[in-house]
Amino acid sequence: MNDFRYQAPTRYIFGRGKEEETGNEVAAIGCKKVMIVYGGQSAVKSGLIDRVKVSLDECEIKYVTLSGIKPNPTDDRVYEGIEVARNESIDGILAVGGGSVIDTAKAIAAGTVYDGDFWDFYAGKAVIRNALPVGVVLTIPAAGSEGSGNSVITKIDGLHKISLRTDFWLRPKFAILNPELTFTLPPFQTASGIADMMAHIMERYFSPTPDVEVTDRICEGILKAIIEEAPKVMANPEDYEARANIMWAGTMAHNGICGCGRVEDWVSHFMEHEISAVYGVTHGAGLATVYPAFLKFMAEHAPSKPAQFARRVFDVDIQDDKSAALEGISHLKDFFRSLGLPLTFAELGVENPDIDLLVKKLHENKGEIIGGYYRLSAADTAVIYSYAL
Amino acid sequence: MNDFRYQAPTRYIFGRGKEEETGNEVAAIGCKKVMIVYGGQSAVKSGLIDRVKVSLDECEIKYVTLSGIKPNPTDDRVYEGIEVARNESIDGILAVGGGSVIDTAKAIAAGTVYDGDFWDFYAGKAVIRNALPVGVVLTIPAAGSEGSGNSVITKIDGLHKISLRTDFWLRPKFAILNPELTFTLPPFQTASGIADMMAHIMERYFSPTPDVEVTDRICEGILKAIIEEAPKVMANPEDYEARANIMWAGTMAHNGICGCGRVEDWVSHFMEHEISAVYGVTHGAGLATVYPAFLKFMAEHAPSKPAQFARRVFDVDIQDDKSAALEGISHLKDFFRSLGLPLTFAELGVENPDIDLLVKKLHENKGEIIGGYYRLSAADTAVIYSYAL
Repeated sequence: MNDFRYQAPTRYIFGRGKEEETGNEVAAIGCKKVMIVYGGQSAVKSGLIDRVKVSLDECEIKYVTLSGIKPNPTDDRVYEGIEVARNESIDGILAVGGGSVIDTAKAIAAGTVYDGDFWDFYAGKAVIRNALPVGVVLTIPAAGSEGSGNSVITKIDGLHKISLRTDFWLRPKFAILNPELTFTLPPFQTASGIADMMAHIMERYFSPTPDVEVTDRICEGILKAIIEEAPKVMANPEDYEARANIMWAGTMAHNGICGCGRVEDWVSHFMEHEISAVYGVTHGAGLATVYPAFLKFMAEHAPSKPAQFARRVFDVDIQDDKSAALEGISHLKDFFRSLGLPLTFAELGVENPDIDLLVKKLHENKGEIIGGYYRLSAADTAVIYSYAL
Repeated sequence: MNDFRYQAPTRYIFGRGKEEETGNEVAAIGCKKVMIVYGGQSAVKSGLIDRVKVSLDECEIKYVTLSGIKPNPTDDRVYEGIEVARNESIDGILAVGGGSVIDTAKAIAAGTVYDGDFWDFYAGKAVIRNALPVGVVLTIPAAGSEGSGNSVITKIDGLHKISLRTDFWLRPKFAILNPELTFTLPPFQTASGIADMMAHIMERYFSPTPDVEVTDRICEGILKAIIEEAPKVMANPEDYEARANIMWAGTMAHNGICGCGRVEDWVSHFMEHEISAVYGVTHGAGLATVYPAFLKFMAEHAPSKPAQFARRVFDVDIQDDKSAALEGISHLKDFFRSLGLPLTFAELGVENPDIDLLVKKLHENKGEIIGGYYRLSAADTAVIYSYAL
């Protein structure tokens, strides 16, 4: 086990109707005027935004809104938000939505109190030392941004999709998790979210660090729970209990507890970010396509951890590591397929992917050699992309 | 899954030599003069207290000390600590030790800034609204107090051992976890700590709340990790990796993550607290004695969860719930026995326990009917105590 520091101070408020406590929670973190950031019209039509506003009104919290945040969120909306936040003397950001909304809110929170260009943080040119407090009302269990210190933003100029990771400043102060808000998610979005949260666990699980039994077992346990609950939410979108388990799994997958004490991997996320940046696909669906390809390469080159994954998560009973790993991949693909997720570029809607371009951008953004579990060159990542053809 | 609120803001600093960062961490939480609370001479002889003092000196933190805190800590030392803290204008408490030291530090932290008698909090007559910040350098992985909002103190008058649970105020601000500090723990204390942390998970696991798959799987995973790592630390006390896993498991067992979304049980702890209050036994050893007895009663009256425990934690492959549960108990007893832990009152060193007295005190302190998983009367708890004869 490696040395580590870990602190996850986000307050979770979980259960039915909890969005009605938004005003109290905003007041508790000392904010008087917030920017409500949200996505499309569904949050308005469902009445969620109104319920949140009523709750803020009851606590005499003022607000402005920034709406229309789209999937794979872009820097232009961040700049817009920062300008509004400064002009309106906003003292907190309230994200009502999923990962794209929360990640945009976090970027605005850091950018508003920074003298330079907020992109400096994402480009690695500056380190966040301050940010407005962020609160969340979660509507999509997937990205895990409600409990993480991370934010992923795409710079339109050059389509650079960059993930920024912080220990502290970008962690939300509170996250309200009401599983009922996820009843109306379309099946494809539900399934993509499930792939995303599984990937968040697996990116931490596939690690070269030995002797991390506690963290491994936590990862395997949450994965097993997701595999148990996912078919229930697909079969009955209003199954509160299953939705609740999936929602909590999504948060636990990405609040860092699955990574304590070890080197993490993240190659599959990096590889997917290039696909979604260039082709605009849904992130979780892209991960369902990339992850089995990544694991196939690992079964060939470093099968021990994929074999453990197969044995402990899918109860594969095969002695040989490579064979066990391949059998586990087969189970994982069956599972993704059962959720209606794509397993190839073509199924993802990318008929003729420009793998050379993806590889070039990947290594431009992330370095010549990448990956925590196994070090990968451009030749290797090209092979992995090709496994998803 | 039930509605819940969860916040665990403690900062963990994990790894070799991390006690040398104590001064920095104390400074980071804004303290200028702390009370170092510790136990016997082993922390002095090992040089740990000196290393902590050097670290405080380097950061210009002043300190006084309160030493000699014993297992099953008592209210007299808390009163003493409160008086010293007030006279010396202490602004934070630094616990260097295990659960008894940390629980005493927490009681002092709350009592110092309270006008009334600190015991009011434990007697349920007052609610903590303020406390001095507490930091921890952990030396015994067992009680989990380094990450919990709990504190257990025994009132000498009447030998009332009471567990106080708070959501926020008693959670340490930071906890330094260096597995090397546990190398010199005697085998019996190591084993008792392991039983204690397992019990902390099981008290939350044995719940009547259905559909808590994520939390269940996390519990089962950590239990499996403990069962894997425990024999290694018993065989080789200086196995850093195994010690590290046990230490982290102890923290995760009790920081609340294993209880999210459900009613918890805690009967076995309540029953053991009466034993250790009256007979002064080691808490974890008492739990090793009580828990199988509790589970035997549950196998007879509510076998579904003990059966799941048996199947998922000990890989028991038996269809019938009661039979599976009994087989699981057999595995648990074998495991405790392999660590050298007692399974009966006699092995615990209590030749002729006064079960009537234990039952009377138990229900006086905790109510006529107790237990989260299954509701137990005095007649029931008498049966459970008798199963440990």
